[in-house]
Amino acid sequence: MTTARLSPGVWGVVATPFNGSTYDLDEGSLTRLVEHYERIGVTGLTVLGVFGEAAQLDTEERRSVLEAVVDTVELPLIVGATSLGTAPVIEEVRLAQEVVGDRLAGTMVQVNSNNPTVLAGHLKAVHEATGAGIVVQDYPLVSGVAINPESLVAALADLGFVVGVKAEAPPTTVAIATLTRELDVPVFGGLGGVGLLDELAAGSAGAMTGFSFPEGLLACVNAYRNGGYESAREAFLPYLSLVNFEQQVRIALAIRKECLRRRSLLLEGAVRPPAAPLPESLIDQLRRHVDAVQQHLAVSV
Amino acid sequence: MTTARLSPGVWGVVATPFNGSTYDLDEGSLTRLVEHYERIGVTGLTVLGVFGEAAQLDTEERRSVLEAVVDTVELPLIVGATSLGTAPVIEEVRLAQEVVGDRLAGTMVQVNSNNPTVLAGHLKAVHEATGAGIVVQDYPLVSGVAINPESLVAALADLGFVVGVKAEAPPTTVAIATLTRELDVPVFGGLGGVGLLDELAAGSAGAMTGFSFPEGLLACVNAYRNGGYESAREAFLPYLSLVNFEQQVRIALAIRKECLRRRSLLLEGAVRPPAAPLPESLIDQLRRHVDAVQQHLAVSV
Amino acid sequence: MTTARLSPGVWGVVATPFNGSTYDLDEGSLTRLVEHYERIGVTGLTVLGVFGEAAQLDTEERRSVLEAVVDTVELPLIVGATSLGTAPVIEEVRLAQEVVGDRLAGTMVQVNSNNPTVLAGHLKAVHEATGAGIVVQDYPLVSGVAINPESLVAALADLGFVVGVKAEAPPTTVAIATLTRELDVPVFGGLGGVGLLDELAAGSAGAMTGFSFPEGLLACVNAYRNGGYESAREAFLPYLSLVNFEQQVRIALAIRKECLRRRSLLLEGAVRPPAAPLPESLIDQLRRHVDAVQQHLAVSV
Amino acid sequence: MTTARLSPGVWGVVATPFNGSTYDLDEGSLTRLVEHYERIGVTGLTVLGVFGEAAQLDTEERRSVLEAVVDTVELPLIVGATSLGTAPVIEEVRLAQEVVGDRLAGTMVQVNSNNPTVLAGHLKAVHEATGAGIVVQDYPLVSGVAINPESLVAALADLGFVVGVKAEAPPTTVAIATLTRELDVPVFGGLGGVGLLDELAAGSAGAMTGFSFPEGLLACVNAYRNGGYESAREAFLPYLSLVNFEQQVRIALAIRKECLRRRSLLLEGAVRPPAAPLPESLIDQLRRHVDAVQQHLAVSV
Repeated sequence: MTTARLSPGVWGVVATPFNGSTYDLDEGSLTRLVEHYERIGVTGLTVLGVFGEAAQLDTEERRSVLEAVVDTVELPLIVGATSLGTAPVIEEVRLAQEVVGDRLAGTMVQVNSNNPTVLAGHLKAVHEATGAGIVVQDYPLVSGVAINPESLVAALADLGFVVGVKAEAPPTTVAIATLTRELDVPVFGGLGGVGLLDELAAGSAGAMTGFSFPEGLLACVNAYRNGGYESAREAFLPYLSLVNFEQQVRIALAIRKECLRRRSLLLEGAVRPPAAPLPESLIDQLRRHVDAVQQHLAVSV
Repeated sequence: MTTARLSPGVWGVVATPFNGSTYDLDEGSLTRLVEHYERIGVTGLTVLGVFGEAAQLDTEERRSVLEAVVDTVELPLIVGATSLGTAPVIEEVRLAQEVVGDRLAGTMVQVNSNNPTVLAGHLKAVHEATGAGIVVQDYPLVSGVAINPESLVAALADLGFVVGVKAEAPPTTVAIATLTRELDVPVFGGLGGVGLLDELAAGSAGAMTGFSFPEGLLACVNAYRNGGYESAREAFLPYLSLVNFEQQVRIALAIRKECLRRRSLLLEGAVRPPAAPLPESLIDQLRRHVDAVQQHLAVSV
Repeated sequence: MTTARLSPGVWGVVATPFNGSTYDLDEGSLTRLVEHYERIGVTGLTVLGVFGEAAQLDTEERRSVLEAVVDTVELPLIVGATSLGTAPVIEEVRLAQEVVGDRLAGTMVQVNSNNPTVLAGHLKAVHEATGAGIVVQDYPLVSGVAINPESLVAALADLGFVVGVKAEAPPTTVAIATLTRELDVPVFGGLGGVGLLDELAAGSAGAMTGFSFPEGLLACVNAYRNGGYESAREAFLPYLSLVNFEQQVRIALAIRKECLRRRSLLLEGAVRPPAAPLPESLIDQLRRHVDAVQQHLAVSV
Repeated sequence: MTTARLSPGVWGVVATPFNGSTYDLDEGSLTRLVEHYERIGVTGLTVLGVFGEAAQLDTEERRSVLEAVVDTVELPLIVGATSLGTAPVIEEVRLAQEVVGDRLAGTMVQVNSNNPTVLAGHLKAVHEATGAGIVVQDYPLVSGVAINPESLVAALADLGFVVGVKAEAPPTTVAIATLTRELDVPVFGGLGGVGLLDELAAGSAGAMTGFSFPEGLLACVNAYRNGGYESAREAFLPYLSLVNFEQQVRIALAIRKECLRRRSLLLEGAVRPPAAPLPESLIDQLRRHVDAVQQHLAVSV
């Protein structure tokens, strides 16, 4: 079981597509979406994350999602765990291992305590039971747990099986600067890319998020590597207004899925309740954003 | 599949006992605990609730807990669902139905939206998929969802399969007064019993909570039925200082399990991390509380 | 300017009475209320605290409240500061000093940072500008600032001008045990008295709160000193059900003022909006509580 | 006393500059800053707002800030009220009226209740006592009060003295679409401009915020009026990466003041504690952002 550090770059966070009327899993759209990710050259994929609505899926659906992705693309995969408790996380990791096998680049486990000793104990228990490499997700909006960067460093300092960190506790720039200075682990930003430029400047290894135009994340990260901050800024600005539009609290998921639908990557933009559907009042503006970005993409290719 | 309203009275919320060193399930203690509940005459039991640390158990452990309880006592059982999403709740309910069968008095489902239509849709979907009667738990501290009593009434007004409500959104007295006036469904208080007297006066059908001396809950509820408020107050006061001591935020679970251990109902008081263990500084005071209540119990029997 | 430590015992937190129709200050009721406090033998009074609705008063009203209290009773006074910023706190303290003079036992300043250095700097700046002794109030529900007991100890360790701490961050028992072990400063519980017994056992110097029957707080604290925990428990139980009823989130203020009105200590129970008025559905139960406690008081005197 | 609706456009939210060592008010920098605002052509200024650190100023300092601004520029002024209670808000408004006189375009009052009747009562009481036009600020992060757009519409529907709304409760696009459809009052976005493009598309009257390069806000709003969404997008993108960098939770104030200092508009970037100072790790990136925007400004003029 590998516990190699995650490769830098862009990890796409995969949406879980549903049919609009029944909310059943739409495997055709899922296949199309991950093929697109592979085609544009992402480093890997994150499946069953928050944006993948994993908390809305039952066990069989999770298995189906994993199977469809594994069968469709050759990319390395990170699989998210939804639970905060040690025993159910282990159960989730085992399912991922069973389906994904050697392709599992890591299992993403949420911070479940602001006490470094307790958090380290949780992560160790998960690793010891499964052998899996662990990507630690610090996302207080979802977990309800706020840990400061110093405590997170203390928790992770001696855990060789931690293969990456996803830093989603604002201000992420400060957290990433601390984590990358103190830990020898790649740290990725998320949150739809709203802070991507600053996170790269702070030392992040790239982006791990579900922005509907991952081409923009790739353009930015590649430009940063090759040309530094100014190049990255130039590459990312054409996407940034959509990034901000997408990353609106409570409705981000519905916006993103509708953007993906407009791109013909999904058949429908449905999100499972209780997540909010797309407000009618945003539809025109969403179209403007998608059109503008698509025009930019057409020109820049 | 029954969808009969819950019987009034005291429903004991069952702790899940663990071995102290390994945190493995301790079925012997579980058996002893539920036998005690049956012996003292509770109306029924709630298993796999928040206080049962259901969020810390994997599927096999949940099944084991249910099996042990079903095999030990004859009481009607409510089984809690931990998830907030419809599909995983249905999966949890099916497990409960498979193990508990006709003894399932209801499945306890958390409020997952403050939008009455969305909440009603969730509950309907769970019921339609399973046929189970549903106890709606309004516990914002755990669910993260705050709904006002009027919206909760609107959500539940036409749902004949709702067999009870557990009201744990303070101020519970106001909520219970509204719910019992507008709905023809029994409403139970929880929260360790801190508001039990006032909740009964507001129209509650009883208590559904895990207080370490359920004898006190029974004494109060029975006295209220037979002698009214003054009798209930007299019956409950000897327990109330321990009720308040137990119901301390973040450490309530550890306090309760240690009280149960002192009563010899559990072998050990261990709680699974990341829940906080019992602070050393409270041990002496916990002993004083338990001694005082036990003396009262010895005299009052 | 004295910076003597606060005397142990019961400090009454004074309500600010209003006329029901206009919400104007009702000085007659204020006078009656503080005379009652003096008559029953409290150690001192806290004026312009959270329960005194200080955040709803303008500068002239605050001055009028202070003047009325100073002119009516001989008790030592703590005056609360509402602001969290250093400069406006200093302005509030100066007003208190101007009106109260030598009778000022301390000014109550809220924790405004979870960083010990920043908090200590704030408290030092207030003291240096005014010379006043400071009572530190740790009340996260009101301040929005959560500090752990260890950080609070670190902040206060070297501040000789801190004359007391009011610990209102649950679990208060754990906080009080830590603070009294590490600091040579009297620590008082608040929160309406819901944890008074346990706070005394943890080392608190007494109660500083606005419970509508401060006789109960006095009976408990005096019994604890003279007879230990068992005596205190016996003395306090007859009040505890009303304590819990009063301390209901969002409506506590309205309940307390109505209880004070029923005791004829206030002419009216009005609270200034946006605080919630007393829900109709609680009126009967409030009456039952007040009657029961008054009967107990009549017997116990 | 005028209660004319606010003019559309960009209202600059004025920082309050301090000397770095003593945190004393730096009136020279304040003068320079508001002169700059006037020179670039903003519609008006908002003084003593959240970003003006009004909660950190005592009464004399607030008066000094207002006097300095009134004496320096001819622009219409909105003056913020910090309190949530009616009586202290009235006191704050009277101070503003006394100093600003006819130049007072409105007083900005925060939403203090999610109950439309209670909120309307608060606003009416403030207006009746002072005659002032009121700008309603919906900023739950600061006020602690969350109101949904429908309730806000209900509260404001019949209040002719409301001259504007500042919508800072995300998702602001949805709120602004609702408010502008239902109310005949100009609605402004804030939050540093992160949603400016989408807020304009949703019907906002412009921006009211403290972004360190208000030239960017002006360029965007003017382009929107003259050329529509596409022009606005083109005009704003060069600023958007700095907008996002600035608008980081907890450190936004320190970042902005340091940006203003780099622009030579302030002598120092000091923020009053307990606000966090600028993290060292962000200094280089801040410089990059400011350089990039200044280059853009030099070219675009």
